[in-house]
Amino acid sequence: MGYPALLLLLAVLVPRNAVALRPVLKSLGDLHLISSTSQSAIVQNYSVLYFQQKVDHFGFNYLQTFKQRYLISAKHWEKDGGSILFYTGNEGDIVWFCNNTGFMWDVAEELKAMLVFAEHRYYGESLPFGADSFKDSKRLNFLTSEQALADFAELIRHLKTTIPGAGDQPVIAIGGSYGGMLAAWFRMKYPHMVVGALAASAPIWQFENLVPCDTFMKIVTTDFRKSDPNCPKSIRRSWDAINRLATTRSGLQWLTKTLRLCNPLTLDDVQHFKQWILETWVNLAMTDYPYESNFMQPLPAWPIKVVCQYLTDPNVSDSQLLQNIFQALNVYYNYSGQAECLNISETASSSLGISGWSYQSCTEMVMPFCANGVEDMFEPFSWNLKQFSDECFNQWGVRPNPSWITTLYGGKNISSHSNIIFSNGDLDPWSGGGVTKDISDTLVAINIAEGAHHLDLRAYSAYDPASVLLARSLEVEYMKKWITDFHYGARRQQ
Amino acid sequence: MGYPALLLLLAVLVPRNAVALRPVLKSLGDLHLISSTSQSAIVQNYSVLYFQQKVDHFGFNYLQTFKQRYLISAKHWEKDGGSILFYTGNEGDIVWFCNNTGFMWDVAEELKAMLVFAEHRYYGESLPFGADSFKDSKRLNFLTSEQALADFAELIRHLKTTIPGAGDQPVIAIGGSYGGMLAAWFRMKYPHMVVGALAASAPIWQFENLVPCDTFMKIVTTDFRKSDPNCPKSIRRSWDAINRLATTRSGLQWLTKTLRLCNPLTLDDVQHFKQWILETWVNLAMTDYPYESNFMQPLPAWPIKVVCQYLTDPNVSDSQLLQNIFQALNVYYNYSGQAECLNISETASSSLGISGWSYQSCTEMVMPFCANGVEDMFEPFSWNLKQFSDECFNQWGVRPNPSWITTLYGGKNISSHSNIIFSNGDLDPWSGGGVTKDISDTLVAINIAEGAHHLDLRAYSAYDPASVLLARSLEVEYMKKWITDFHYGARRQQ
Repeated sequence: MGYPALLLLLAVLVPRNAVALRPVLKSLGDLHLISSTSQSAIVQNYSVLYFQQKVDHFGFNYLQTFKQRYLISAKHWEKDGGSILFYTGNEGDIVWFCNNTGFMWDVAEELKAMLVFAEHRYYGESLPFGADSFKDSKRLNFLTSEQALADFAELIRHLKTTIPGAGDQPVIAIGGSYGGMLAAWFRMKYPHMVVGALAASAPIWQFENLVPCDTFMKIVTTDFRKSDPNCPKSIRRSWDAINRLATTRSGLQWLTKTLRLCNPLTLDDVQHFKQWILETWVNLAMTDYPYESNFMQPLPAWPIKVVCQYLTDPNVSDSQLLQNIFQALNVYYNYSGQAECLNISETASSSLGISGWSYQSCTEMVMPFCANGVEDMFEPFSWNLKQFSDECFNQWGVRPNPSWITTLYGGKNISSHSNIIFSNGDLDPWSGGGVTKDISDTLVAINIAEGAHHLDLRAYSAYDPASVLLARSLEVEYMKKWITDFHYGARRQQ
Repeated sequence: MGYPALLLLLAVLVPRNAVALRPVLKSLGDLHLISSTSQSAIVQNYSVLYFQQKVDHFGFNYLQTFKQRYLISAKHWEKDGGSILFYTGNEGDIVWFCNNTGFMWDVAEELKAMLVFAEHRYYGESLPFGADSFKDSKRLNFLTSEQALADFAELIRHLKTTIPGAGDQPVIAIGGSYGGMLAAWFRMKYPHMVVGALAASAPIWQFENLVPCDTFMKIVTTDFRKSDPNCPKSIRRSWDAINRLATTRSGLQWLTKTLRLCNPLTLDDVQHFKQWILETWVNLAMTDYPYESNFMQPLPAWPIKVVCQYLTDPNVSDSQLLQNIFQALNVYYNYSGQAECLNISETASSSLGISGWSYQSCTEMVMPFCANGVEDMFEPFSWNLKQFSDECFNQWGVRPNPSWITTLYGGKNISSHSNIIFSNGDLDPWSGGGVTKDISDTLVAINIAEGAHHLDLRAYSAYDPASVLLARSLEVEYMKKWITDFHYGARRQQ
């Protein structure tokens, strides 16, 4: 083995390198953000509005406000028996989420629903301090999930009091990924604001030791193994092959040329180079959709199958193996055939807010990850909180509080809540930190066998597997019940 | 009528005068705090401990910590089938609450309970910035109910992880008055931390327009009317009698002498003088207990009955009426017979944190009050938010957000929560803002016909009316069920 685990860890799990080097930590953070949900982004008809929010909901000394952006469409809204579907925006541009959350547009008519998409503070245009929002820890102080939930509560109150007829409509929170966590937490903390929540691919248990830290990478590996058992073997072998080649100048040159990298690979880049590859495999696992899609990158249907066609034989020479790896990476980075070279600084959509999420993962959103290289296809690395904390302090001037999310939102002890649907795709590595078993009659899990990251929130496709069609129809049934119960309760009170 | 309502309002409803002049606003705030709950304060055996808390739970930029005081008694605690009763401290010295919440001590053995009394930040010894805690709005910024609830959550987590055997014990939140609101809100926001809450005399609906603003003063008046219909008539007449006398220097001198005031009354004092009397009537309504008691002041049993013995005839001369009023006030201020004069700057216990509550009522705890002088026995005054806000800004440099508590905690829309007992005494003016009807099978109201302010939390007395004995036994039954359900659930998971 070239690098000992500890050295790898040093390079891999540190937030300092997050923006510059995109280590595993950040790659996971970034990937988590992927929430494009339609086969190809559909530009929808909506109004763009802004709502004045307090920068600090939890104190009275800081009087500044900012404009939160939100999108609204009332095309199918009917006051009689209708509803409001409220997307709890996550870490990115809300227009991107809106145009890519086809499910809400698909069900609007059936649920007589007004659609609202609320942008998360510090993302998109909703910047509390404009261009200075990320300048220092003082300005970043108000980037927390609690403040975001309070934004949603104030916005809903505003909508209900200003839109005629909206006051007596049931609101349902909907979100995917981190947005799914927010939807679930919003129902938990503000159940008077929403009658229920659809939390799609929401890894609310990817904190502390609620799930083993190696779960995520195991699921990624399983996805590749399903296509071909030799595929993860090839990938597992590739790390050492890179390490061996990287020891010589000619090896580095050969890698640069063979993988058509945009910039010459240096010894200092090697860790980052491997992380970029790791991130690519993780991205593919999250976006292993049954049809051609295009959000972070244009991809073929079932992209892992396509990737693994190049990785059927692990027992080839280092150079042959890495030529195969190049072919596999090319599926992700050059499906269009337009890419002249591969840029190891790019993997995700520019619509995502990488800096914001880096800060959040250094404060509240502390998600432990690790790999052992045996049950997964990665170089081993462990979770080191101390190191993580030090690097967060170096980068942002703050230290993470890894137990806070559990203290605040309850960890696994959430059975007293109600009306939350937790949907997860079996192919999605984030499902490992999600709720995949019913907790009660009203806290229900929907598992989608052929689903990657919140496939259910994507627009209908003729290529959708039966499992996601069933999931969506169940979700609609639950939502209809919440809406009916609400209107029935309201009529009884009259 | 001497003073028009507007002038009265100006003087009465303004926080600027809060500390110096004790207007209605503050008197209500202060009175609200009365939480002495035993016939005479019982000094209990407990350990005094301190827990390091973050000053700001909701941000990562502010790293300061402070020591939160808490008291703990494990005398009757049994790990097998036991429980933890957690007093959610309100705005005062926690030792005072501890020594005066006899109910918890009385039921500890039956519930095999550890008792914990957690001090509320900015009160007692739990001062985030020591003597400077009230210096400016920057330091006061962390005095909110949300921060207090987060303190409780962190403390419970600490107790559960550091006391052997406490980790698998059910915790029940208990509080009275504002502490009762905190107990209810804690169960709503952190249901993973406590299996239920006993919210005694908690006026969680005394906000915005959830109840009419004149409800409180009507109940005070009813209490006096019950003793003698002429009693509130006498009091209602007394305001104008004071106004008439106060127009001349000799009248002011006569009032000073007749009411044995410690300091000569001036025309500028008159509003405050009337407010002090109003506050006294309100205090009596809150503390109209069936036996001799002594916390704010030594009082006879059923003190309103005693007071009203002096106010049986409203149709006497101004001077006779005010001599009668003096006799009545003397019941409250000189039951011991030791007072040489009456000090119109003193009404409540020094164990209460008047400054802290003044700030809280100027930020989150915005409780509208008013009187019309017809259905109640007071000079009419209305609720004027604008004026209130301006005066808060003058005093504390902050403005109230009157809708925030409702947005945060749900107002009347709280039916999705569970396991909260709302107890109220029919005699308690705060019952008007409380939950006095069952909301669901697990959100239950217990009304105590002969009860004043959280009589149920006071220690057992041989003079307790049947209604409070029944209330306490019902409360114990509910708590036992929560405890049993918890242990049953835990055993099932094994």
